Amino acid sequence: MRCSLGIVGSELMLPGFSDTHFSYIKEKLWIYNIKVNSATYIEDDINSIKNFLNFSFKNSEFVILTGGLGPTEDDVTKDAVALFLKTNLTYNSKIEKKILEKFSKMGKKPPENSFKQALIIKGAQLIQNQVGIAPGQFIEIDERKILLLPGPPDELKNVFENFLKKFGNNFKSKIITSRYKLAEVVEPEVDEFLCRIKEKIKNVNYTILSKSGDIEVIASADDIDALKEFEDKLREKFKREFYSTKGEKLEDVVSNILKKRNLTISCAESCTGGYLSKTLTDIPGSSAYFLGSIVAYNNRIKIENLGIDKNAIEKYGAVSSQVAILMAIKIKERFKSDIGVGITGIAGPSGGTKEKPVGTVYIAVSRNKKVKVKKFLISGNRNRIRFGTVMRALNMVRKSLIEEKN
Amino acid sequence: MRCSLGIVGSELMLPGFSDTHFSYIKEKLWIYNIKVNSATYIEDDINSIKNFLNFSFKNSEFVILTGGLGPTEDDVTKDAVALFLKTNLTYNSKIEKKILEKFSKMGKKPPENSFKQALIIKGAQLIQNQVGIAPGQFIEIDERKILLLPGPPDELKNVFENFLKKFGNNFKSKIITSRYKLAEVVEPEVDEFLCRIKEKIKNVNYTILSKSGDIEVIASADDIDALKEFEDKLREKFKREFYSTKGEKLEDVVSNILKKRNLTISCAESCTGGYLSKTLTDIPGSSAYFLGSIVAYNNRIKIENLGIDKNAIEKYGAVSSQVAILMAIKIKERFKSDIGVGITGIAGPSGGTKEKPVGTVYIAVSRNKKVKVKKFLISGNRNRIRFGTVMRALNMVRKSLIEEKN
Repeated sequence: MRCSLGIVGSELMLPGFSDTHFSYIKEKLWIYNIKVNSATYIEDDINSIKNFLNFSFKNSEFVILTGGLGPTEDDVTKDAVALFLKTNLTYNSKIEKKILEKFSKMGKKPPENSFKQALIIKGAQLIQNQVGIAPGQFIEIDERKILLLPGPPDELKNVFENFLKKFGNNFKSKIITSRYKLAEVVEPEVDEFLCRIKEKIKNVNYTILSKSGDIEVIASADDIDALKEFEDKLREKFKREFYSTKGEKLEDVVSNILKKRNLTISCAESCTGGYLSKTLTDIPGSSAYFLGSIVAYNNRIKIENLGIDKNAIEKYGAVSSQVAILMAIKIKERFKSDIGVGITGIAGPSGGTKEKPVGTVYIAVSRNKKVKVKKFLISGNRNRIRFGTVMRALNMVRKSLIEEKN
Repeated sequence: MRCSLGIVGSELMLPGFSDTHFSYIKEKLWIYNIKVNSATYIEDDINSIKNFLNFSFKNSEFVILTGGLGPTEDDVTKDAVALFLKTNLTYNSKIEKKILEKFSKMGKKPPENSFKQALIIKGAQLIQNQVGIAPGQFIEIDERKILLLPGPPDELKNVFENFLKKFGNNFKSKIITSRYKLAEVVEPEVDEFLCRIKEKIKNVNYTILSKSGDIEVIASADDIDALKEFEDKLREKFKREFYSTKGEKLEDVVSNILKKRNLTISCAESCTGGYLSKTLTDIPGSSAYFLGSIVAYNNRIKIENLGIDKNAIEKYGAVSSQVAILMAIKIKERFKSDIGVGITGIAGPSGGTKEKPVGTVYIAVSRNKKVKVKKFLISGNRNRIRFGTVMRALNMVRKSLIEEKN
């Protein structure tokens, strides 16, 4: 089945908004063998949306519109779709109730236009929105399908997932997809390897996604054996850096190991400034294993509040394997956790020296009576270096726990 | 001038990739009065890219292609553009040097295909990439302009900014744009207010962008006075919640106040798990004011390592104004900072009760001998609640420092 995607909203020319629309929907539909053959940004304007629908149904059987379901004056997606379908909007009292609840929770009176969100297209099947107000709306007429999704990324995701749960089986195809994750390798290494074994994996379609310190290979095939062989080759080549077949995030993998083995973790962070702790606590239920951290950004805090020996800092420098080791030991000791992580480095843009350029990072993991430390040189800007450091720290924790088990 | 945007890469159907492409470029060009009239995702395929170029130059004078400048086999943007222009690629030894340096820094031998990145389109003006390898390439032939940008978001931004620095003046128009930021208000409030004063602001084009706990109103006009009146109206209505006319992030505004007044800050975080500290240290040079934090996720850490009275937790609960106040006081005391922030709340999805549902958050700010505490009820999922909490904490810090000054 072919699908056209229309992203409604003039605000989409502005930052932070196009984020997940395309990529998220395309990826999910790919698994159902629905191909998104076009994606178009559309102004908040009834005629533009109507024209888009007319045009899209020439090439597609399925049109998804995201955005324009909000309460403000320029939210006109529903009006345009009703006009296109020559039908009406009806008022839904369940949505009205949700609106009243939301505003009473905030202690505010709902502005009049809030109730616009309670209007739905006649005959539409509603899809639950557990994050915000506007539900999804799915309309099937003859061979044509229209799905309306709210614009804000987390609402969009939630509604789209609920849509797939409810209607996904109608589309389900036989393509099998796996999402292999690799840590601490670079894209050209993976690409070159897969090119070299091209002949052996010719029944598999794949694509390589790269993020600083993390690689995802998304592969699909008609045949489970072809995919299995592809996986085996990757495992054989990248060994312990191969960490998931399901596209999990590294923090989820680490979190699952910790939970399963009933272990606790604490962190002493310098250059990452709380980023590792933030990442570990992004995960619901992280209180099962994450105790807390000391962010010792300033050297005085390292000495006075974390208990790092002042002489060690003077002798080796705050960015050194010695200090990383002490940080990991001290936090484990102070917080009485099973694992302690210590991170110190230079995230830049300033602070680099010839011996220790920007991107120099030391990570130590303390476990039982042992400490492992590793030096990394991470390229890129401040953001990449900090994110890359978090990924490498998580990977060190993961590997040390795997080793222990074997 | 009209511009078509082509986003090259089959991987764009996958997560995390479309992120900044559209929104970032559109917004920047808008300021130069260049209108992006279409945006299209294109497969990694020479013919598709060539067809796109043929088609686009029928409607636009300027075509931007992002992505496909990488080292892997499916990176073919340059080949396609050269074919379209009937020209050649030439080998650039400066880029070769950069490639060699990158890999020697990692202690790895560059794979053969890495050197593909050293090929450039004959006659192209190169634009510096300070984040990764591939430079931008700008080609002007007759009335047609083509700009090639690397795909990874942070490289794209860096190169695009360098492009605007170098060539922006060629495009500069007379439109004036301001980006007003408001904290702790919801979109319908702003929308309704602006609708109400519609007549008075009819010479201003605006759009409202909303993120949990933060609103941006981007406004443009031909005439500075019209824009000034618009700004005055917003200020008058939203008073102390109006915090920027330049689209700054809240953390940048707080950071500038702290730096200017030579004040230090430390945080005691529970439900945000390091997110506030991470946000404060996202900013280069944050070591000037940020000392560090204790992430006290577990109650034992709150008691043993932060020094919160056990009885207070038992009596009032860990999520209470009393505990938030103690957290702010204790961290300020222990870290000897000028400002201490305490955060405790329920980020969910579980842990809520009838009295304290998911989204209940207490934030305290300790300064001099005074502590301010505020209760919030934030709606949305875990991610929204955590982000919303960070924004509200930053806003409390901002407001307490502004008050002090007056």
